[in-house]
Amino acid sequence: MSLGAREGQLDLLRTVEWRDGQVVMIDQTLLPGRLEWVSYNDYRGVAEAIVTMKVRGAPAIGVTAALGMALGAQSLPDDPKAFDRGLAEIRACLAATRPTAVNLFWALDRLWALYERSSSQPAGALKEALMVEARAMVEEDITVNRSLGRHGAELIPEGATVLTHCNAGGLATAGYGTALGVIRAAVEAGKHIQVLADETRPRLQGGKLTAWELHRDGIPVTVICDNMAPTLMRQGKVTCAVVGADRITALGDTANKIGTYGVALACRSHGLPFYVAAPLSTVDFSLRDGDEIPIEERDHSEVTHADGARLTAEGVPVLNPSFDVTPAELVSGIITEVGVARAPFEESLKALKERA
Amino acid sequence: MSLGAREGQLDLLRTVEWRDGQVVMIDQTLLPGRLEWVSYNDYRGVAEAIVTMKVRGAPAIGVTAALGMALGAQSLPDDPKAFDRGLAEIRACLAATRPTAVNLFWALDRLWALYERSSSQPAGALKEALMVEARAMVEEDITVNRSLGRHGAELIPEGATVLTHCNAGGLATAGYGTALGVIRAAVEAGKHIQVLADETRPRLQGGKLTAWELHRDGIPVTVICDNMAPTLMRQGKVTCAVVGADRITALGDTANKIGTYGVALACRSHGLPFYVAAPLSTVDFSLRDGDEIPIEERDHSEVTHADGARLTAEGVPVLNPSFDVTPAELVSGIITEVGVARAPFEESLKALKERA
Repeated sequence: MSLGAREGQLDLLRTVEWRDGQVVMIDQTLLPGRLEWVSYNDYRGVAEAIVTMKVRGAPAIGVTAALGMALGAQSLPDDPKAFDRGLAEIRACLAATRPTAVNLFWALDRLWALYERSSSQPAGALKEALMVEARAMVEEDITVNRSLGRHGAELIPEGATVLTHCNAGGLATAGYGTALGVIRAAVEAGKHIQVLADETRPRLQGGKLTAWELHRDGIPVTVICDNMAPTLMRQGKVTCAVVGADRITALGDTANKIGTYGVALACRSHGLPFYVAAPLSTVDFSLRDGDEIPIEERDHSEVTHADGARLTAEGVPVLNPSFDVTPAELVSGIITEVGVARAPFEESLKALKERA
Repeated sequence: MSLGAREGQLDLLRTVEWRDGQVVMIDQTLLPGRLEWVSYNDYRGVAEAIVTMKVRGAPAIGVTAALGMALGAQSLPDDPKAFDRGLAEIRACLAATRPTAVNLFWALDRLWALYERSSSQPAGALKEALMVEARAMVEEDITVNRSLGRHGAELIPEGATVLTHCNAGGLATAGYGTALGVIRAAVEAGKHIQVLADETRPRLQGGKLTAWELHRDGIPVTVICDNMAPTLMRQGKVTCAVVGADRITALGDTANKIGTYGVALACRSHGLPFYVAAPLSTVDFSLRDGDEIPIEERDHSEVTHADGARLTAEGVPVLNPSFDVTPAELVSGIITEVGVARAPFEESLKALKERA
């Protein structure tokens, strides 16, 4: 593996956006084979896209849900009571798509709060306001990621090999990425680094999405099976790990893609830093303990099959928890857009939140 | 998952044997879809079957190589010098198939030693002696596994959930298995236990072979992705781990399928016992440190593809070390046919060897 650096800004690939009255997103289930966009003019289509993981990644789910709610609002009747009931239904439909990433609820709550503040206005103004706010959230997400990336880049040594798990990249956000935002910012700052991408069973977001988007940017990346990371750490081939998050509690416990906890344990065993990169919207201050975070159990066919090929013996049950919880004591730092939180996280996260 | 127990002996499935002057083996690359046997009347075919993993698993590789060497001997000329040269070539061909499992070299050395002791005999007698010895090694392997299983079964508590990695089952031996021999012996002793099988990327021997053979025996088994094990341990859903070995050094460092080291680390982090089950022929007393064990790097297509389906982004490099080394300090016990070795392994393994 050779180290590559490139000064100056990398091209930005937008994952989801508002275009001509529609919500347009990359269909990530077709990657890495094909880069195609899909458009929705009905919020139910947007909800379905989240469920089927055409769009995935906590921040991307958040902005997509916001765009979906704004999209749905455009078709609501002008009557205030009917508008109110309709918007509540849209919100409930989008909220029911996936349970673990808190950014989804954060985004819907933010649009709902705007609606409540403005509900005396006529329907036309409300529709416009919701659309403008949702689009602002897309731009904000990118700005937040760039800022988060700069804070995180300072933690990545020149010449580092950074291990990441799943895809916390541009594809998991409106663009630029969280964990991969840190990588991108380090590269944009002129550092020569390389990435080890856990393939991330069962859906292989690492081998498919992380590998694809870093390769596209010319950032050196090598894919490994999830179970190879510990021995590479033992051989001194890993400098640190940076991952994303789907929900972080007030104490710093972090839910992220299944397998993250094993990466954190292995980092601890080898004395390597383990960083979580996430916008403050990922912190759920209403929860203290990670065990309170609802963990989605997804369809078992994700484990038993890959693109039609059968991977397990017929008739044998499988488990498919989509996320796990890494306790705060294994987290070296939580990289946010306002700065890096360090233990004790209860205080540092609160302080960052107040500064934001 | 329900717990199942069945007193009395389970059916024995033979993986490889001598039949009518041929070496006959289950083609494991077709499992779990089809159970088919393949026959060889040329030792080069046997060598190829080892390379392509029609047969795999350290003890199975050992007995298969022995059968292959005996098979090759049957076609050698009677002239002593030509016989000697021919047998050396056969041995070299079989020894070059796979580098990590020491049982391969142990088995070939054992047949070679027999040949050297008997080389004054006529070719016909030599051929017969080599064939009889190789067949005896097949039977011995099964006997050794049953004995190993009984020693190991005592370590498995009633009601246990045992995690295993890769396939150290009947399919990895002449029959009955090492790690799965321990499971089988516990079930045969009337214990109600269940198994969590790591699918074991990249070749999925856990999801395919371990799941298949335990399901066939009616032993409750659930397949998980490798990266799920740590969080199941954290949730208290794992009692202990039992794995096989491809080579164990005099100090107890253990090479086994890639991912084993991560399982051992996670067991240590959660205070769970981590057992290695292997015949004494797996112990390489000529090596002290696990880092001296040669680790096979296999074809990258094992990581990038599964049954034709592409799993990683095009143009992105991958790594594929087939084994890793678990240092002795993470091993709670090494279960052999003579008894269970405990730390310090240098003394306990030597003592077991002397008792054998």
